[in-house]
Amino acid sequence: MAVAGASGYAGGELLRLLLAHPEVEIGAVTAGGNAGAPLAAHQPHLVPLADRVLADTAAEQLAGHDVVFLALPHGHSAALAAELGPDVLVIDCGADFRLTDPDSWQRYYGGEHAGSWPYGLPELPLVGGTRQRDELRGARRIAVPGCYPTAASLALAPALAAGLVEPDVVVVAVSGTTGAGRSPKPHLLGSEVMGSASAYGVGGTHRHTPEIAQNLAVSAGTAVRVSFTPVLAPMPRGILATCSAPLAAEVDTTAVRKVYADAYDAEPFLHLLPEGGWPTTGATLGSNALHLQVTVDADAGRLVAVAAEDNLAKGTAGAAVQCMNIALDLPETTGLSTVGVAP
Amino acid sequence: MAVAGASGYAGGELLRLLLAHPEVEIGAVTAGGNAGAPLAAHQPHLVPLADRVLADTAAEQLAGHDVVFLALPHGHSAALAAELGPDVLVIDCGADFRLTDPDSWQRYYGGEHAGSWPYGLPELPLVGGTRQRDELRGARRIAVPGCYPTAASLALAPALAAGLVEPDVVVVAVSGTTGAGRSPKPHLLGSEVMGSASAYGVGGTHRHTPEIAQNLAVSAGTAVRVSFTPVLAPMPRGILATCSAPLAAEVDTTAVRKVYADAYDAEPFLHLLPEGGWPTTGATLGSNALHLQVTVDADAGRLVAVAAEDNLAKGTAGAAVQCMNIALDLPETTGLSTVGVAP
Amino acid sequence: MAVAGASGYAGGELLRLLLAHPEVEIGAVTAGGNAGAPLAAHQPHLVPLADRVLADTAAEQLAGHDVVFLALPHGHSAALAAELGPDVLVIDCGADFRLTDPDSWQRYYGGEHAGSWPYGLPELPLVGGTRQRDELRGARRIAVPGCYPTAASLALAPALAAGLVEPDVVVVAVSGTTGAGRSPKPHLLGSEVMGSASAYGVGGTHRHTPEIAQNLAVSAGTAVRVSFTPVLAPMPRGILATCSAPLAAEVDTTAVRKVYADAYDAEPFLHLLPEGGWPTTGATLGSNALHLQVTVDADAGRLVAVAAEDNLAKGTAGAAVQCMNIALDLPETTGLSTVGVAP
Amino acid sequence: MAVAGASGYAGGELLRLLLAHPEVEIGAVTAGGNAGAPLAAHQPHLVPLADRVLADTAAEQLAGHDVVFLALPHGHSAALAAELGPDVLVIDCGADFRLTDPDSWQRYYGGEHAGSWPYGLPELPLVGGTRQRDELRGARRIAVPGCYPTAASLALAPALAAGLVEPDVVVVAVSGTTGAGRSPKPHLLGSEVMGSASAYGVGGTHRHTPEIAQNLAVSAGTAVRVSFTPVLAPMPRGILATCSAPLAAEVDTTAVRKVYADAYDAEPFLHLLPEGGWPTTGATLGSNALHLQVTVDADAGRLVAVAAEDNLAKGTAGAAVQCMNIALDLPETTGLSTVGVAP
Repeated sequence: MAVAGASGYAGGELLRLLLAHPEVEIGAVTAGGNAGAPLAAHQPHLVPLADRVLADTAAEQLAGHDVVFLALPHGHSAALAAELGPDVLVIDCGADFRLTDPDSWQRYYGGEHAGSWPYGLPELPLVGGTRQRDELRGARRIAVPGCYPTAASLALAPALAAGLVEPDVVVVAVSGTTGAGRSPKPHLLGSEVMGSASAYGVGGTHRHTPEIAQNLAVSAGTAVRVSFTPVLAPMPRGILATCSAPLAAEVDTTAVRKVYADAYDAEPFLHLLPEGGWPTTGATLGSNALHLQVTVDADAGRLVAVAAEDNLAKGTAGAAVQCMNIALDLPETTGLSTVGVAP
Repeated sequence: MAVAGASGYAGGELLRLLLAHPEVEIGAVTAGGNAGAPLAAHQPHLVPLADRVLADTAAEQLAGHDVVFLALPHGHSAALAAELGPDVLVIDCGADFRLTDPDSWQRYYGGEHAGSWPYGLPELPLVGGTRQRDELRGARRIAVPGCYPTAASLALAPALAAGLVEPDVVVVAVSGTTGAGRSPKPHLLGSEVMGSASAYGVGGTHRHTPEIAQNLAVSAGTAVRVSFTPVLAPMPRGILATCSAPLAAEVDTTAVRKVYADAYDAEPFLHLLPEGGWPTTGATLGSNALHLQVTVDADAGRLVAVAAEDNLAKGTAGAAVQCMNIALDLPETTGLSTVGVAP
Repeated sequence: MAVAGASGYAGGELLRLLLAHPEVEIGAVTAGGNAGAPLAAHQPHLVPLADRVLADTAAEQLAGHDVVFLALPHGHSAALAAELGPDVLVIDCGADFRLTDPDSWQRYYGGEHAGSWPYGLPELPLVGGTRQRDELRGARRIAVPGCYPTAASLALAPALAAGLVEPDVVVVAVSGTTGAGRSPKPHLLGSEVMGSASAYGVGGTHRHTPEIAQNLAVSAGTAVRVSFTPVLAPMPRGILATCSAPLAAEVDTTAVRKVYADAYDAEPFLHLLPEGGWPTTGATLGSNALHLQVTVDADAGRLVAVAAEDNLAKGTAGAAVQCMNIALDLPETTGLSTVGVAP
Repeated sequence: MAVAGASGYAGGELLRLLLAHPEVEIGAVTAGGNAGAPLAAHQPHLVPLADRVLADTAAEQLAGHDVVFLALPHGHSAALAAELGPDVLVIDCGADFRLTDPDSWQRYYGGEHAGSWPYGLPELPLVGGTRQRDELRGARRIAVPGCYPTAASLALAPALAAGLVEPDVVVVAVSGTTGAGRSPKPHLLGSEVMGSASAYGVGGTHRHTPEIAQNLAVSAGTAVRVSFTPVLAPMPRGILATCSAPLAAEVDTTAVRKVYADAYDAEPFLHLLPEGGWPTTGATLGSNALHLQVTVDADAGRLVAVAAEDNLAKGTAGAAVQCMNIALDLPETTGLSTVGVAP
């Protein structure tokens, strides 16, 4: 098992989770600009790997592993994956292979569309009652979802699949700063983010917008309009997605909760809270659980669902490990926990 | 000038602002359970008042002042105000006199409706082109708005007043913890809130929901449906309200920005950011400014407006001082600043 | 295995760690005032225990377990332990049995001294070259150290044991807020602690002062003067202890580092950082590792050691599990990790 | 009045304070790499300056102002000041002119020593009973102290001046992240600093060490050994300095407090807290006040003093404005406040 991009946040989280995975041996850990440095300089929390040195992210370093995780900037995965052979399980935490529509890729990311891989959101309900999980069994290329799309899609999919709401959704999602990665930009300095919240990518310009729409269309069986606003909050990890849509049916909270319970009660990582409880991101930190609650606002005529997750875990690296388990026919929960590190 | 409720956050902020006000002399500072304690035990940042002792919140302590600010728990203002005489300017930072509809009061707060006072949101555009400010001139009773309604109402009012959007809005507002007051509750402990975001009052159950609807109806000239979700974020101060509504007209961002500029450019405390800039709560901290931006999301068919404010300043105590200035015919900006303490 | 005090922070962390322990089955989970409530209302992060209800903290609830962890307010452990039988392994996370000197107990805690139990700091070097660990093998009563004493004692003990420094130490330790527990006090509100640091218990009045002195005396073989100042920092978890003492020998940093390496390199949870690296609490969060660095300041004539730990993990609950492993003759690292959850 | 370095944190704070100063008109605002950008892109909180554009930091831009504040990286002040003429009041917030000893400069900063200017710590007690203030009256060149030296020096000077303690001090000071400036470095990212504390510059290697020693020597009348450890805490602003020294006299807390009260009660910005109260940085934010408390730890044989300040205000920009007032013979408190923005 190798991790490319091991000096970043997603790479570090992959290694953290893989260190606890009983079926995995950690091989190459590679980086781009940080190649040659001790891993400990960038990931001091990974004590058992304190003597590792970051190799260069190149096919020759990654070759010879059964599983290769890519945690690279956008646009770097395709070329590397092409060199890794079809039998290697390549799991891409980047965006390169998430979108199926070349026009969406072109519009939101620019450059040539690399194609699409099986999409790593196992729990997503599909039209017809199956799950996205089925596409991942035995797969050797998997595109891990974006952190926001995981929360927003799982929060809204059951309602759309059941026809409870109009395909016209509003998502406002608060995120911790690790979602923006580790490259040092002035607006991500601690001095700037502590004590302050800010919106960005407003008006549908965030790259996760088409990915949310793509997922919801798959669940709804029809195109879904998505108004998405991400908000940066002063915390390192965590996404809290507040999602709503106009009611399309006469339902109350009890009925809606039953739909969600039917959809998710068998899912080991999706945790519908008891009625009256609302998710906090803190309870999910470090875990692969997504916490969820849903209600009906009769006055506003809307269903409101709120999902919390750890953006680096269930939102990225945990999902990647979960997908690996499925692809390799291991028990899906192997090496993953629903227990958060709180408070 | 007297402040009742001086040991709480709103009371402390009132005193902070009044210490900088050139036309004000600070008389009685009172509290409920904290009466008898040194003010410094609760407000150590108010160095010039370090030798003050908290008196009891009772009419005899407040009598004899031209202006009395009330920063009390809900339900305590009516009886106190009744004892203060009609010539005293009483400015209530609580909710008791905000709602005009007794049924709304009954539903959201319970108990008897105390009535309504002139509503202290000076900049709110009214049908016909006037402002809420006019009602405040010479008033001797003023109800200061809730912190969320200030942000949400000012963010959406110009669009509704101009008929740009349908009267069916979604507001998701992130708030710092001081909005929940100073009474020690387990979920407000630093250990709980740091590193975590959580939604609460979801589904229209938060008490500020009818207040937002009331304000927007006044601007729109018609009833407005409001879906409101507050989110608690790990910061002491600040509200960032992400507000959207379906477009009712063919407009682009430029046109919408012009409507907002026309509405607010003459307002000293409302700061429409340059195109492309989005508000951060950090830039407003300690100031009486509300920062605002608006855009059109053509794909989603929605107008999105984001407002940032300091919930204790423009959201409460700053608004109270601004209203005092208007009521007393002082220049509206006296003693107030648009300069935030950042970072 | 039972946990008494399961609604608090130490109790929650015990359960988090025990859920990952392969040799443990979680039996009774009890509380005082919160008895009868769902565990999930207080520990929403412990998803696998979401259906548990808090029993009452009473001997009959705790009876029948091989191991009982006590995470109670001071003064409650003695009576409870007396009812549990000598063959039950009772591990007390409270202070009741830490101090050996009744006068120290009386002075710092008041009330009658309950006695002392084997002290659960396995790595502490004792005069003669043994470790505190030896006293824990087969023990059936163990007193888990305070969070500050763990960091301060391990940071300074090798230098004192080797005679490198005078027995006259200064410790200034920054702590997250969970160290103060979960009872809601105004000064622990998020609004108060975020964005602010404060000293407390200054001048040797903090209860951990005599415990640090007791530990260091055991390592030094002589009485040690301790100046200890705790500082509350705006973070939920983590202790960073900056410890120094006057040099008693002509040594340089290399020599001092060798003494520490000799003392700790075989210890699985003590991580002496590479030269030039300094600990961050973030790298230890959720783990049982203590990160350490030491240097010589020749100008000031002092040795300076800095230790970082997670106050709830290695500082409390992790130490408790580590002690359980030793007492039960399990491999000491069973169920414990050195991998932090960062960032 | 001009500010060079107006896109950084110190520059922004200078402008914030100067906007509130009744005797000042803000002229040129300049920057290095950010020249040409709107000031609002870097200082969105300075609403009244929202239409300003950053000029280039060059003598021709700064010429023609009576007062020029320099908030530049180390090493840039000397050349610029040389071009500004002897009648211009130049106040340097950088380190270039703080140290009087060329060897110390060489050792801690490297490069050629530019010399020293009158040192801008007005309240510092000098041997003989005078204050550092006297040197600043009418001065036209002033070196503003470093943020740590302000807190540590004022915390210890009265005890040293009165001979209460040995000239052998230990300072451990917790700081917010703005002290590290605005240049984006990975370890200053919000993701890294939130939830974590870390020591740096341990062992006397921090550049403020010789500056503290220089100040204390001036108060003590003898050389003072300084062990200084800075700690980075997860907050934007604030320094909390815990300072101690061995007692040299038989004194108790009451006697020590009297010495401090005598030293500081007449100082408008130094606030000795009532006995039993300890400083929090939160209470000082945005203000020019330094809060202070002192006690005797008889067991440890040490005096312990704790000081809190806002590192950007009293620690940098507020001190600069205070010095300007003195130099220009304005009332020293003009435009400055002791009221913090809390919580």
